[in-house]
Amino acid sequence: MSDRKRVCIIGAGPCGMAALRNFSQSALDVRPEVVCYEKQNTWGGLWNFTWLTGTDEYGEPCHGGQYKHLWSNGPKECLEFPDYTFDDHFRCPIPSFPPRAVLREYLEGRWTNGDDDLRKYIKFNTVVRNVVYNDASQNFTVVSTDLKAGVSSTEVFSHVIVAVGIFNVPNKPHFDGIDTFEGRIMHSHDFRDAKEFKGQRVLVVGASYSAEDLAMQCLKFGAKSAICTWRTKPMGFKWPKGIEERPLLLRLDSNTAYFKDGSSAKVDAILLCTGYRYAFPFLEDRLRLQSGLTMYPDDLYKATLWLRSGGGRLFYMGLQDQYFSYTMFETEAIWTCRYIMGTIPGEPKSQAEMRADAENWVARRKELKGPHDDIDFQADFIADLSAAVGYKPEAKKVADMFHKWEHDKDADIVSYRDQSFQSVFTGTVAPTLKSTWWRAFDDSKEAFVKNSE
Amino acid sequence: MSDRKRVCIIGAGPCGMAALRNFSQSALDVRPEVVCYEKQNTWGGLWNFTWLTGTDEYGEPCHGGQYKHLWSNGPKECLEFPDYTFDDHFRCPIPSFPPRAVLREYLEGRWTNGDDDLRKYIKFNTVVRNVVYNDASQNFTVVSTDLKAGVSSTEVFSHVIVAVGIFNVPNKPHFDGIDTFEGRIMHSHDFRDAKEFKGQRVLVVGASYSAEDLAMQCLKFGAKSAICTWRTKPMGFKWPKGIEERPLLLRLDSNTAYFKDGSSAKVDAILLCTGYRYAFPFLEDRLRLQSGLTMYPDDLYKATLWLRSGGGRLFYMGLQDQYFSYTMFETEAIWTCRYIMGTIPGEPKSQAEMRADAENWVARRKELKGPHDDIDFQADFIADLSAAVGYKPEAKKVADMFHKWEHDKDADIVSYRDQSFQSVFTGTVAPTLKSTWWRAFDDSKEAFVKNSE
Repeated sequence: MSDRKRVCIIGAGPCGMAALRNFSQSALDVRPEVVCYEKQNTWGGLWNFTWLTGTDEYGEPCHGGQYKHLWSNGPKECLEFPDYTFDDHFRCPIPSFPPRAVLREYLEGRWTNGDDDLRKYIKFNTVVRNVVYNDASQNFTVVSTDLKAGVSSTEVFSHVIVAVGIFNVPNKPHFDGIDTFEGRIMHSHDFRDAKEFKGQRVLVVGASYSAEDLAMQCLKFGAKSAICTWRTKPMGFKWPKGIEERPLLLRLDSNTAYFKDGSSAKVDAILLCTGYRYAFPFLEDRLRLQSGLTMYPDDLYKATLWLRSGGGRLFYMGLQDQYFSYTMFETEAIWTCRYIMGTIPGEPKSQAEMRADAENWVARRKELKGPHDDIDFQADFIADLSAAVGYKPEAKKVADMFHKWEHDKDADIVSYRDQSFQSVFTGTVAPTLKSTWWRAFDDSKEAFVKNSE
Repeated sequence: MSDRKRVCIIGAGPCGMAALRNFSQSALDVRPEVVCYEKQNTWGGLWNFTWLTGTDEYGEPCHGGQYKHLWSNGPKECLEFPDYTFDDHFRCPIPSFPPRAVLREYLEGRWTNGDDDLRKYIKFNTVVRNVVYNDASQNFTVVSTDLKAGVSSTEVFSHVIVAVGIFNVPNKPHFDGIDTFEGRIMHSHDFRDAKEFKGQRVLVVGASYSAEDLAMQCLKFGAKSAICTWRTKPMGFKWPKGIEERPLLLRLDSNTAYFKDGSSAKVDAILLCTGYRYAFPFLEDRLRLQSGLTMYPDDLYKATLWLRSGGGRLFYMGLQDQYFSYTMFETEAIWTCRYIMGTIPGEPKSQAEMRADAENWVARRKELKGPHDDIDFQADFIADLSAAVGYKPEAKKVADMFHKWEHDKDADIVSYRDQSFQSVFTGTVAPTLKSTWWRAFDDSKEAFVKNSE
């Protein structure tokens, strides 16, 4: 084996593709050999829609949890790439909250924009089964299976980047009597089309983004009512008629749900919007991050480099709870790629220095009091990381937009997607929708562009 | 490591438990050390009901596909153990087609009937991740993960028995336009309660047991109609009003299904009764059986011993399409356990003899013309295997009952579960139900016994 570095990227979603793209644009003398393994038959990660739920066509757990009529729940100006703006891609201004297909197209545009065909580095329909770090040789043995052919391969890499995402393995809590419930029970990961719940009384378990959006979706497409049930605190939005919030679901008995405040209600379907599990079953124990959803997981330098094992050669991407998404992933990708290639001034640091830096962020994380704190924290994290590599995602300016967005939602959950934001890179002010989001029933790109003032 | 044999059983369903029970009853001087790994939190395999679909509480693919109001679709007299009859367990005669809970109780009764607590050999909530055969040392390295603790272990075994079943990994074909369908799409593996389809027009894709039973279940519990769509040939039963069969589904467009005969229909939900995949992702390639559903898979001596690799130390159980179930599994378990312990006269045979025997069965399999042939074939297989170990499941007499059962179904699909069969071991004639299966809406054991004449 030559001395050339060999990097394994696991996952071809927004994170893995950002890493792959950065490597492919690096100077030839430092560029490592790169192999990207992707379980799905195409790139895009969570942005791919599939009618499949539970397990996929090969019997593997389905990655995707996208649904029809999903529109971005944050302004596109908050996830815009400085060096590939929405104006660059669409050639005309578009509203701030696009439906899924529009954002997926934007990503794909970026990935196909360069001279290099990134597809050639990706092994599609290939699942990574096992990753082991070899202490003696300081490298990784990676076992993968080509799902179409049913054939496994073993390869050795100097570095591994785990980019499988954190929103693909559903978390499913148990409730007393849930096995007596005489209706449909599903996790939000299996939600595909709100029309399936037309005329029904749905019970939404959860109080975060999925709960908010699925309750709204169901109402928008004809559900009779939605009760959202919370454990820690209600979402507290000014809901449209038909949606209400109640304290925690305690138990179920046939079609009746009983809540902590003593109330009860008849419901037809239960939507578990109870989040996801951090799950990396393919990693040996000591390489496996142990975490729940958090703004900064423990034991990661710059939230990417795994400090507990793996010889400083194992990286995670996109592991934290996310306000910023594409640009945070891009920043992490630039940093990770350059770290691996050895082109970041002042890196690598000693284990003690890295640990101190990570602990500093974790200590700050523990003081966060809510969404606005979280936004500033994540902006600071991106500012820190991007400064180290000379990237300019303008995280602080974007943070101001996130703060406004939070206020918009608090003001009116029905209309927050009708607001307009201004690009920090182009100055373009987004046009508004002719018909509001609440009245827009076609989520195609064509309809979206036509619906723009 | 001592010379004592160490056997790994993967799965604690009817097959794995049969093997475990047989080992535990063997003479101490030949009895190997046994460890059984079970992904679920209890034994019973497919017979366990869970409200979960898709992935389980640990994010692993759900094993179970049982549903409420599932009643046996074959007479209990066809799966009765000679040495643990239904009379032994229930102490009173019960009708021939019991609901799920009754059959599960019968199995559990058998497993708890001996002096040995079989639970102590089972590692519950533990998934096997990787099995590799070591040629030099002629043993297996098995990596498993305790899902509760999140901790992996590596152990070495002299023999491995794969008993994970063949009805747990859904097969999901694609149909043109399926991603435009504006209603629920599910595989039968995710079917939990027919009441979810009340008032709906369901499209059932498939023409085997799941298709037949789910169409009937949906009608029984209030669905408006069911169209079953077939690829090879229709089931051809005399369906009750509301169920019809049509040639293959060609495509979908929104809520309209288009069939090969040029007809179309509006439907509200699609139930894919499209069977299962043989899937053993935890086995290294050369140990992995490559097969679809068949009456006798290739490359297995006595349908259990894997001939292509694994040094004659890897066994599969319950791998063939099944008419006989519990007693076939028992026969395979006795044979496999005794083979491993070296107590079958005339075994082991040479590789050439084993291969010739297996090829003989496969050749005969290829001549099978339909269900009645299949039944006789499976009876002969069991007779062959049980003769070698002196077990007496009376496979030929049971086959006669299966033939009658097929005729009953052909005569009337609605009432075949109301028929009575006679135990070949006790002579007991099953009582009939006071209310017919079609009118029985309580599937508890108590209601079932009360409903008996």
